[in-house]
Amino acid sequence: MRRRPELVFSPYCWRVRLALLHKGLSFDSQPMRFSDRAKLAFSGQQMVPVLRDGEEVVSDSLAIFRYLDQRYPAKPLLGDAMSSARLELIDQLIRHILPAGMLKGLVLNLHAVLDPADHDYFRESREQRLGMTLEQFADPVAGQAQLQQALRPLDAVLATQPYLDGAEPAASDYLVAGFFFWAWCLGEQPWSGDSPIGVWFQRLLSQYEAQLGPVKRAV
Amino acid sequence: MRRRPELVFSPYCWRVRLALLHKGLSFDSQPMRFSDRAKLAFSGQQMVPVLRDGEEVVSDSLAIFRYLDQRYPAKPLLGDAMSSARLELIDQLIRHILPAGMLKGLVLNLHAVLDPADHDYFRESREQRLGMTLEQFADPVAGQAQLQQALRPLDAVLATQPYLDGAEPAASDYLVAGFFFWAWCLGEQPWSGDSPIGVWFQRLLSQYEAQLGPVKRAV
Repeated sequence: MRRRPELVFSPYCWRVRLALLHKGLSFDSQPMRFSDRAKLAFSGQQMVPVLRDGEEVVSDSLAIFRYLDQRYPAKPLLGDAMSSARLELIDQLIRHILPAGMLKGLVLNLHAVLDPADHDYFRESREQRLGMTLEQFADPVAGQAQLQQALRPLDAVLATQPYLDGAEPAASDYLVAGFFFWAWCLGEQPWSGDSPIGVWFQRLLSQYEAQLGPVKRAV
Repeated sequence: MRRRPELVFSPYCWRVRLALLHKGLSFDSQPMRFSDRAKLAFSGQQMVPVLRDGEEVVSDSLAIFRYLDQRYPAKPLLGDAMSSARLELIDQLIRHILPAGMLKGLVLNLHAVLDPADHDYFRESREQRLGMTLEQFADPVAGQAQLQQALRPLDAVLATQPYLDGAEPAASDYLVAGFFFWAWCLGEQPWSGDSPIGVWFQRLLSQYEAQLGPVKRAV
């Protein structure tokens, strides 16, 4: 696996790409290194994703969803007040159960595709957060077992309807799918392609690739 | 702790009580023993909750919510199609993360308040499901630690709004609150009263008790 600056390996950036595609909006994407944070100064904060739309600058994936619905109301992502409140809860629950297991399988892939200028920052910041070295944390087998448990509620919903948000995809699908595109572009697929969630991901991936071409993956 | 046939110790029955209160509908409640399943034959299945409303019989807490919205449309529980789809996802996610930790602290309380006629059934069915004895599974300290983790996403949402469904409570609140009323009526409160979720529960409990009187608790 080698440095791949063109890979999109933030799950939260994937959320925004999928939301822009949902709205039928074209966009340019700027690759970012962790060490490039100064490039985000215009947004008043240091985290991706950041959307610039004319004079408007919005950061945070859910805030970007809200902005898109306000500015481009066709094909709502969030829905009404009750739907939006439920989306916030889903976001919190998903961030609680999904990324932890995935990260155990992806952390060394992530490190491998970084620009060398980012290696020290990534290792130090993640090791501080995890309380152990990346190598101690990395455990694809345990991560996959943990992920299988976390996928059960998603499989249960998708066993009876094509998308998490019902007959058509909307914000819940993109919130969750961001983590799947993240694993996918890092060259992994720690879920069964035949499971309801596997079929759902393949459907979103095909729709994405039909519009924007093949997703670049680490090899 | 002694046998208390008047306690309501199904989290799913609590969901329905809260939903009926939300709709402003009065109801009679029939205490059930596990060994009384024959009493549910009229519903065509064996699980509580079952709602009988005139000629209509509905089982399953979410199906009852749907029925109530259809029959009594004022004060919607579910909302539109997108809100309803998100509620199904929230239900699956909550059932995945919340009851497991709670049960470790409650399983022996549950056993203690059962009618003696139910002891064998409860022990055999639960021990088969858990793959160990009730006493091996019971672990209030570990359960509380697990629950503290599971409450973090709920606290994050409730730190910024009074109810999970936004400014007013609706189905998401009752889905989740069922588990809290379950613990409460078994005499436990394995969460901090000062936390956002603790304040939220107290608010729902006060509203319930203002209408229907004190919730009976195991002592």
